[in-house]
Amino acid sequence: MNTFNRVAIVGGTHGNEFSGIYLLRKWQDTPALISRPSFETETLFANPNAFRDNKRYIDCDLNRQFAPADLDNPSLGNYEQSRAKAINQQLGPKGNARTDLIIDLHNTTSNMGPTLILLKNDAFNTQLAAYVSERMENAVILFEDHCSMDEQLFLCSIANQGIIVEVGPQPQSVVRQDVLEWMDSMTGHILDFVDLYNKGEVPELPDTISAYRYVETLKLPENAQGERIGMVHKSVQDADFTPLNNGDPIFTTFDGSEIYWNGNYEAYPHFINEAAYYDNNLAMSLGKKVDITVIK
Amino acid sequence: MNTFNRVAIVGGTHGNEFSGIYLLRKWQDTPALISRPSFETETLFANPNAFRDNKRYIDCDLNRQFAPADLDNPSLGNYEQSRAKAINQQLGPKGNARTDLIIDLHNTTSNMGPTLILLKNDAFNTQLAAYVSERMENAVILFEDHCSMDEQLFLCSIANQGIIVEVGPQPQSVVRQDVLEWMDSMTGHILDFVDLYNKGEVPELPDTISAYRYVETLKLPENAQGERIGMVHKSVQDADFTPLNNGDPIFTTFDGSEIYWNGNYEAYPHFINEAAYYDNNLAMSLGKKVDITVIK
Repeated sequence: MNTFNRVAIVGGTHGNEFSGIYLLRKWQDTPALISRPSFETETLFANPNAFRDNKRYIDCDLNRQFAPADLDNPSLGNYEQSRAKAINQQLGPKGNARTDLIIDLHNTTSNMGPTLILLKNDAFNTQLAAYVSERMENAVILFEDHCSMDEQLFLCSIANQGIIVEVGPQPQSVVRQDVLEWMDSMTGHILDFVDLYNKGEVPELPDTISAYRYVETLKLPENAQGERIGMVHKSVQDADFTPLNNGDPIFTTFDGSEIYWNGNYEAYPHFINEAAYYDNNLAMSLGKKVDITVIK
Repeated sequence: MNTFNRVAIVGGTHGNEFSGIYLLRKWQDTPALISRPSFETETLFANPNAFRDNKRYIDCDLNRQFAPADLDNPSLGNYEQSRAKAINQQLGPKGNARTDLIIDLHNTTSNMGPTLILLKNDAFNTQLAAYVSERMENAVILFEDHCSMDEQLFLCSIANQGIIVEVGPQPQSVVRQDVLEWMDSMTGHILDFVDLYNKGEVPELPDTISAYRYVETLKLPENAQGERIGMVHKSVQDADFTPLNNGDPIFTTFDGSEIYWNGNYEAYPHFINEAAYYDNNLAMSLGKKVDITVIK
């Protein structure tokens, strides 16, 4: 069993997702809140200029800049590409990182509650998911393990273990107390678990847990010129992790027509109508509900 | 009784409030939707560059640039100051406007539902409020009549009658179908009422209506350096137009202390935790509940 010696908590990867940014300030004032006996915890404010300008990013999405080839490409030099290289130097380098675990704190405008996003299905992650699920009634576990850590573009993929704490609904550029508390609480449970894991004191966990696994991303309705011509249907709005079946309404065009989902599985939508995804005309992600074996 | 010959519907005064912008597109495609027999309706997309950049504004808040002295001051020349002068030329000039009524469409991240904001207490506005209230169950009437139209800084104050349709909750840079439909419906009722008013065919209305009147604006907790040190209390979040009394919790500081409201009236908060108000560290507006006489 590997041991976690260095844990990094990252906030402000997106400059208008405020919960992590304000939690970092609190923890910097009171480091004991994120200290645990068996490892070192550091904090990193990933995108200060985007926060200064009250935007998700200055030049491009920082949380998509961590492909190894991009980190190694000196010609990629805009603000976020440069931040990615600096963060990779500080916490990484990716593939051989000095940081054992990165917890990256995010908000969504979608009604996802406190969601723990895991990038691989292994003993640590499945035990962590079980531990957190048992301690937070409204926690959601979401596996985005469709590619290797090396192939992941996320900031947290620098470390061998990288996880995302994704909490909503919260409008961009707002602090909601409920959302802040969920993020604070989930992060605390993760740190507690890592400490127990290091000490070999993980309590008894269930054999399986209920989770979701990412399958695909749906686009908003577009015309031939790629312009948005419709919106998320009101029956789907706010219904993250509520099942969607073939023939259910999913979009409404601005001229009033309904569009129905055409799919051959029971889908669990999430990131529904996320503000940041409008850049690429994305409407939502779809996942499947899965029982995950807790690997002991 | 005056007659309304020209009505302007304005959208996109703030570039990241999407409902009005998408409704304008729909109405430009199908003008019959906003045509009524007794007057001309035109539409105006107020801040296209802010929409292009997916921001509230480029240089300053367009909806605060309509003081007569500012409109007449040639040294105020940034983007929104210039847009204000151009819009004043097109719809105004303020004080002697060619447009008889301006309906300005706005979104808020606050849980205000469809709110009709009226800037003066007169026969037209009170009858309009009564007409809309009877036709939209969740409509809220809010008077911001604490100063004269001449002193108002809002775009809609160009016209002798200017009203704001303010609908939420909607995150910035998102389109929600429910919010879009409330805005569409409220605008339609306003246009219907103007047509009936012009024809002298306003139906029988109640003698009084229930409404709110703006009293004051509260700031978020700040330290001596003017930095934000707290947030809206979770018991107040989303509780727009729910009464607040002396001693009720209103803020929570980031270190966990509660702050209580100290006031000598039953307050009805609104614009609670509105994203755009963080620029000035504003937390919410407070109003009083009032019975308004419908002036016939």
